[in-house]
Amino acid sequence: MSSAVTSIPSPTGASAVHELMLGIGRAAVGAAEVLALASTDSKNRALNAAASALRAQAGTILADNAADMRDAQAAGAGAPLLDRLKLDARRIEAIARGLEEVAALPDPIGSVMASWERPNGLQIARVRVPLGVIGIIYESRPNVTADAGALCLKSGNAAILRAGSESRRSSAAIHACLVQGLQAAGLPATAVQLVPTSDRAAVGEMLAGMREFIDVLVPRGGKSLVARVQAEARVPVIGHLEGNCHVYVDRDAELAMARRIVLNAKMRRTGICGAAETLLIDRACIGTHLGPLIADLLAAGCEVRGDLESQASDVRVRPASESDWSTEYLDAIIAVRVLDGVDEAIAHIARYGSAHTDAIVTANQATAERFLARVDSAIVLHNASTQFADGGEFGMGAEIGISTDRFHARGPVGVEQLTSYNYRVRGAGQIRP
Amino acid sequence: MSSAVTSIPSPTGASAVHELMLGIGRAAVGAAEVLALASTDSKNRALNAAASALRAQAGTILADNAADMRDAQAAGAGAPLLDRLKLDARRIEAIARGLEEVAALPDPIGSVMASWERPNGLQIARVRVPLGVIGIIYESRPNVTADAGALCLKSGNAAILRAGSESRRSSAAIHACLVQGLQAAGLPATAVQLVPTSDRAAVGEMLAGMREFIDVLVPRGGKSLVARVQAEARVPVIGHLEGNCHVYVDRDAELAMARRIVLNAKMRRTGICGAAETLLIDRACIGTHLGPLIADLLAAGCEVRGDLESQASDVRVRPASESDWSTEYLDAIIAVRVLDGVDEAIAHIARYGSAHTDAIVTANQATAERFLARVDSAIVLHNASTQFADGGEFGMGAEIGISTDRFHARGPVGVEQLTSYNYRVRGAGQIRP
Repeated sequence: MSSAVTSIPSPTGASAVHELMLGIGRAAVGAAEVLALASTDSKNRALNAAASALRAQAGTILADNAADMRDAQAAGAGAPLLDRLKLDARRIEAIARGLEEVAALPDPIGSVMASWERPNGLQIARVRVPLGVIGIIYESRPNVTADAGALCLKSGNAAILRAGSESRRSSAAIHACLVQGLQAAGLPATAVQLVPTSDRAAVGEMLAGMREFIDVLVPRGGKSLVARVQAEARVPVIGHLEGNCHVYVDRDAELAMARRIVLNAKMRRTGICGAAETLLIDRACIGTHLGPLIADLLAAGCEVRGDLESQASDVRVRPASESDWSTEYLDAIIAVRVLDGVDEAIAHIARYGSAHTDAIVTANQATAERFLARVDSAIVLHNASTQFADGGEFGMGAEIGISTDRFHARGPVGVEQLTSYNYRVRGAGQIRP
Repeated sequence: MSSAVTSIPSPTGASAVHELMLGIGRAAVGAAEVLALASTDSKNRALNAAASALRAQAGTILADNAADMRDAQAAGAGAPLLDRLKLDARRIEAIARGLEEVAALPDPIGSVMASWERPNGLQIARVRVPLGVIGIIYESRPNVTADAGALCLKSGNAAILRAGSESRRSSAAIHACLVQGLQAAGLPATAVQLVPTSDRAAVGEMLAGMREFIDVLVPRGGKSLVARVQAEARVPVIGHLEGNCHVYVDRDAELAMARRIVLNAKMRRTGICGAAETLLIDRACIGTHLGPLIADLLAAGCEVRGDLESQASDVRVRPASESDWSTEYLDAIIAVRVLDGVDEAIAHIARYGSAHTDAIVTANQATAERFLARVDSAIVLHNASTQFADGGEFGMGAEIGISTDRFHARGPVGVEQLTSYNYRVRGAGQIRP
């Protein structure tokens, strides 16, 4: 985070931040009570009005973003951070459209997930309700301000947003548009709050000091941020740790399909969590399949690091080391390993994978079903690219991330996954014998 | 826990416990991999064989329980603890039958929770999978050993059980029967492990030192145990804090129904979490309803503590103080408050309740729907007793507790709530554009 901020705040600073965060927490709980009962129409009106405000104030947002960019450059930020931070007219339009898309999603709140009648005549319904107050801690991408705020609002949750200090002006400008939307719809302005300080003590408060106010934390950012939140949080976390995704090309894979899927899984976009990082290939088909697969990747500009057999198949393959099997490159690099059949592939994925997204290419149904049943990842695919790991591609609308946890939500986290439920029981005077 | 155990273990002891728990954790993870793929039949055979073993070894279990009881009496344990600890032939039969009932439940694992097809032809299925390894920390009730072990096994999870030191011999004897069942079915004996030490450091390890091995913790016991686990755990917790349950008798309540429900909600069993602790009554009907309701409770042996109007209605009503509204008596005591209509009842419950189970008695549908929609508790009932707060009564089979959390599971926690899910996607070569 910002080097301008003292990493060990003075007692006075910490106490001031504590008071600030208590006030934010109380306001969020109050807003959550209103949001839980807010109509679908009012939530959608707030989202659409916020989209209009974003378009109307694009000039201000771009000026604030330019100031953030100047500071980040002066602080020596690298190109990837600057790219994540930068806004332009196209990105602002995409953010506005994202708000409208969330407005267009079905409202999960109040929907009956299941209902049944007991022999004694009790009618039981399990109904979706909001989680309450969601804290989101993120880094340099200012669009998270709008995306996360919108998903929380649609799912009836109050949001406390803690943006990275690099994007503080940009996030504040976007947040102002969300507040305008809330006010236009008659909803509490505190339904989506942005923590107004870059003091790191605010993060500490969210992690451990606000159990009374925050129901769930969502870290959005790099591995170190997510790991810190998972390690230190005293409230439940929806965490997305990393995607070390595999494509396994089986002996019964059709070559043309395998080539198409491997190339897409690795190279369509290399920086997303669903990008493939390791190619596993069945020894039984390396004579026909390995050469073309490696040639495609190299031709597309991908560095290939392989075991001895992969190196033997193409001189341009560099040697892979043990650490390559565990690495999420998020770059145009792939590790290649030859092994014997689906069970070895399953074992490799269990040992080195991150339980995010893994795929098999095979024309053999039994082999495919074995892989689908035994690979314990959030998403397991047969004959499809790992790049489909995305809430939108799953038909769930926008997502706040892809959970690699097993508790509560797993895989894409959309508005439904930001809900809880309760039981509503209708009787006619029944008592328990 | 036991006074025979040093509360601050020596460094040597702590390090030995650390090693012990690491071994238990590793074994549990290994067993969980097998259990996740175990057939329904093998899990059921293990449960039924364990039930047979319990019956066959009832004599040994009773002898071990008698030794636990002697120790507890010598340590000065009170009557409630001794009652929770005590086993007899009837209780052992109930435990055995509980195992058979869990065997008879549908297997949640592998069931398709939802499935859909995308416009690009991808077939997406959300399938139930186990959570992994579940740690259960409990106190004096030895039956939890069988109940919790059985629910974890049926849901494909490995269990690490940490019994209270008072019940260590009884729990070990019951655990031995579970192990016999597992072995009879060819499942790993380490699928259900009992921590073999009463050293409190073992609890510390489960709370904070075994993130790598334990996926979820379930505390079963008193408020202080659950609160400690929720405060100190570094893994997700399914917690059941307390049940400060209300019955609100509305102006439109039918008197006969209100009398039946209030008496049952309070007095059927006073020591369970779904027992009513506060009666709220609409001022509009106190002339007709309050006297009979209070008279019924007093006649049934319930102490009644009320506000001024309740005291005015019956001289036997003792004064309630502010703390009565927040108290979970778990005893034959009820607090009574007169207020104005459903909205004041909703506000009282929001302020003082524990979001567990609350009921309204009214013949007015609109009033009932308002209460059902606005009381944010795990279970909200209309014209039925709060004592229905129970997984069995909901048709969910056995339960490991009633969650007062909002995250993951809320309300009764049965085998389905002890699961996660993943997405299995079947394609025909699709790549992402």
